[in-house]
Amino acid sequence: VAAGGSQPWRVAILGVGLIGGSLGLALRARAAASRVVGVGRSEAALRRALELGAVDEVATDLARGVAGADVVVLAAPVRACIALLPAVAAAVGPGAVITDVASTKAAIVAAAPAGAAFVGGHPMAGSERTGVEAASARLFEDATWVVTPTATTPAWALERVLAMAAAAGARPVVMDAGTHDRRVAAVSHLPQAVAVALAAAVPAEALPLAARGFRDTTRLAASSPAVWNDIFATNRDNVVAAIAACEDRLAELRAAIAAGDEAAVEALFARAAAATGGAAAEGRGRAPAAGGG
Amino acid sequence: VAAGGSQPWRVAILGVGLIGGSLGLALRARAAASRVVGVGRSEAALRRALELGAVDEVATDLARGVAGADVVVLAAPVRACIALLPAVAAAVGPGAVITDVASTKAAIVAAAPAGAAFVGGHPMAGSERTGVEAASARLFEDATWVVTPTATTPAWALERVLAMAAAAGARPVVMDAGTHDRRVAAVSHLPQAVAVALAAAVPAEALPLAARGFRDTTRLAASSPAVWNDIFATNRDNVVAAIAACEDRLAELRAAIAAGDEAAVEALFARAAAATGGAAAEGRGRAPAAGGG
Repeated sequence: VAAGGSQPWRVAILGVGLIGGSLGLALRARAAASRVVGVGRSEAALRRALELGAVDEVATDLARGVAGADVVVLAAPVRACIALLPAVAAAVGPGAVITDVASTKAAIVAAAPAGAAFVGGHPMAGSERTGVEAASARLFEDATWVVTPTATTPAWALERVLAMAAAAGARPVVMDAGTHDRRVAAVSHLPQAVAVALAAAVPAEALPLAARGFRDTTRLAASSPAVWNDIFATNRDNVVAAIAACEDRLAELRAAIAAGDEAAVEALFARAAAATGGAAAEGRGRAPAAGGG
Repeated sequence: VAAGGSQPWRVAILGVGLIGGSLGLALRARAAASRVVGVGRSEAALRRALELGAVDEVATDLARGVAGADVVVLAAPVRACIALLPAVAAAVGPGAVITDVASTKAAIVAAAPAGAAFVGGHPMAGSERTGVEAASARLFEDATWVVTPTATTPAWALERVLAMAAAAGARPVVMDAGTHDRRVAAVSHLPQAVAVALAAAVPAEALPLAARGFRDTTRLAASSPAVWNDIFATNRDNVVAAIAACEDRLAELRAAIAAGDEAAVEALFARAAAATGGAAAEGRGRAPAAGGG
């Protein structure tokens, strides 16, 4: 079996949308793959991925697409990836590692067939656009790419997934799947829930007065509910707990405002500013913003 | 008494920060003011406004600063404006209109001394930066500028404030102060409260995984608590009601996720997307965003 770091690999990507397509572009741009095969059901989407240079070849047949692959990347929505896993595990050779790029990790890690060299992954990158048309070879640059091995993950399999994430331009970070899911519930799934609740709470007649603050805070609300039902279904307890924690903070702020307790308002703002300052420092240098309403 | 539209006016701006400074720059750039006087307590800030071309002259003495003004613009935080109103009303001549640019309107409209030609105003423009250094002659371009006359507002005073807002590049909109305050509670004050509650709800160890969605949704959380205590204190009932409505939507979404009721999740997303689509259409062409987490 080949060592994790021995590039270039033959890579099969199942689902060539924004993330799958960007991964193909990044690996090809950095010569980290000897061959990138795009696998999917839509011939039109596969043809477009080929035209854009995201893949070297395409296949609509799963077994043919993953044959000979060193790395198989599941780049479909979470529950579709979970459904695909048994067939993929049965089709790949013994030296292949299977990984994914989905937003939740514990469910898919638990669903991996015993004996399959599966390592979960989640690149913390995205775009307001979707589909291979929006793919970019630079999407993963400076992004964190969480990789979630278990106690039984073969070392070579973990190493190859870490090396692929690095080859795509990301910063690979190893984390337990459960820890990942708790943390993304707070910083990714909760903001989605909050954006939806906020947008749904605003009466239509107030919208003509909406300015940049409203648009930024609710930007995520236009996201696909199908994608999010997948995420919520596979991270239910963590998401429910995160939303409840936010409801508590909102109730606390509401009570402070109702009571005219300006010190309590200031304390909540200070706590919030500490979190946004920390996130900004971890981010790509985007400054946090002030400004009245 | 001069007609509302007879430019150029002599304009005194009390508080030459982001909004006051931008107003000075805009009126001077469009030759809508014969003279812009910056009035404030900080000589350093006034000198900087002069250097940047936001004002023609400066004064630290209120009576001297507003003498001869056709328009006096209060551009300080809401409660400071309310505190200044009696002295300003006593200092201006009978042909002067007093207006303001604060984020809430009912409290300051109610505080205007009887007999003063006061017309409330609120340009729906801002920036993530503060102070005259961030001021721009184009800040108000395409922005809505709400103007809130009462039944006793003289027509010439209303006309002059509307003309000044238009001269600054904004779209003036006449609205009842109470209606304004209810609507901005929903589209401006609620997003601020939500950004703070969300940021305060996130555990520190999750922040390294924060990406663009978290940063956009919590961008407002870094805003000044002093400015916001002013806003909350002068729009308390509306803000409390808006936060409570958002808590209800969050609880509804949380219950749907907990129950695995994907149709209910989709219905809330659809309701939210309608609101963000509407706000985007009212905004300056920024597209709403999709993308998973």
